[in-house]
Amino acid sequence: MTGDITIKALDKVGAEDAEYLVSLIRSIPGFPKEGIIFRDFMPVLADARGLDVLMRALEAALPVPADEFDSIAGLESRGFLFGPALAHHLGKGFIAIRKAGKLPPETIGESYELEYGTASVEIETMAVRPGERVLIVDDLIATGGTAKAGADLIEKAGGKVAGFSFVMGLDGLDGLAKLGDVPSSMLVSMPA
Amino acid sequence: MTGDITIKALDKVGAEDAEYLVSLIRSIPGFPKEGIIFRDFMPVLADARGLDVLMRALEAALPVPADEFDSIAGLESRGFLFGPALAHHLGKGFIAIRKAGKLPPETIGESYELEYGTASVEIETMAVRPGERVLIVDDLIATGGTAKAGADLIEKAGGKVAGFSFVMGLDGLDGLAKLGDVPSSMLVSMPA
Repeated sequence: MTGDITIKALDKVGAEDAEYLVSLIRSIPGFPKEGIIFRDFMPVLADARGLDVLMRALEAALPVPADEFDSIAGLESRGFLFGPALAHHLGKGFIAIRKAGKLPPETIGESYELEYGTASVEIETMAVRPGERVLIVDDLIATGGTAKAGADLIEKAGGKVAGFSFVMGLDGLDGLAKLGDVPSSMLVSMPA
Repeated sequence: MTGDITIKALDKVGAEDAEYLVSLIRSIPGFPKEGIIFRDFMPVLADARGLDVLMRALEAALPVPADEFDSIAGLESRGFLFGPALAHHLGKGFIAIRKAGKLPPETIGESYELEYGTASVEIETMAVRPGERVLIVDDLIATGGTAKAGADLIEKAGGKVAGFSFVMGLDGLDGLAKLGDVPSSMLVSMPA
């Protein structure tokens, strides 16, 4: 426990590094609206040691061994901030899941529900080889809707979701339940 | 020369790796509109060797030695796809330049002109230390407007732009001229 942030798998890099990384996560009450505490992990990335600890922690906390997946997929935009870095760190490739309309053809799309309305995401059809085993990464799991949409997209493109890796999770929202029995990990958790 | 793509600094990783990376760049004529050839580097990232060659090439082609800058900044979204990976590769931190309205306060903003209308980008004020030397990365330099906006933002926040590193450049648009006398590099170039 560090402030209101609970260390989960982040402890696998050791207490000193774990506490250092948590100290870099900035909490902003009332952003983007009243009643929400925004958790800002930009300062983790902006700090050379923070970024290094983040990579080592994600590696140490992988929900499945690195030889049990072929590539990493992440969602625009915040998943892009550490997904390719983790892919490079582990010697894998990175599959970009983008907001609809940005990728050239051919693409496969998937819609999912937001608090208000729906959003659509896409990948390039050729980005996933048949049977390719993919680890999905995202900065935050709340209700799990975004991660589920990413997973559905990978499966629709012919891939297989090997696991989910999250930096942060929100207590009590039970987002992991939406992801079925696929292995997952999160580094820290905090009140919603 | 590989197809209509000319190898610039990419040759610094050796001919075989350079040609391999170029072979992964996909050209899509007519996207997003008639008369434009879209250059898609997602397949470079999706390929483990492609991503590794990209990192080694960007490192070999750095416009200034790595000890002459403190951190790397990149623009949402495509700059996020390799900026943090390059930062981790070089042991630096990464400063995210986001589209306006996404970052929590306090932020500093900058507007720039697009073909039609204007766009605005922001960084967190605290993301840049006074005098911090920053390398700006982007996937593509065309007219240079986006890179210039990023540079102005870093300077406005109290930093110093040490150089620019681009993956791709468009022939004949003279985008580098807009960036003043700050050192820059690009891996490959191609017709606009």
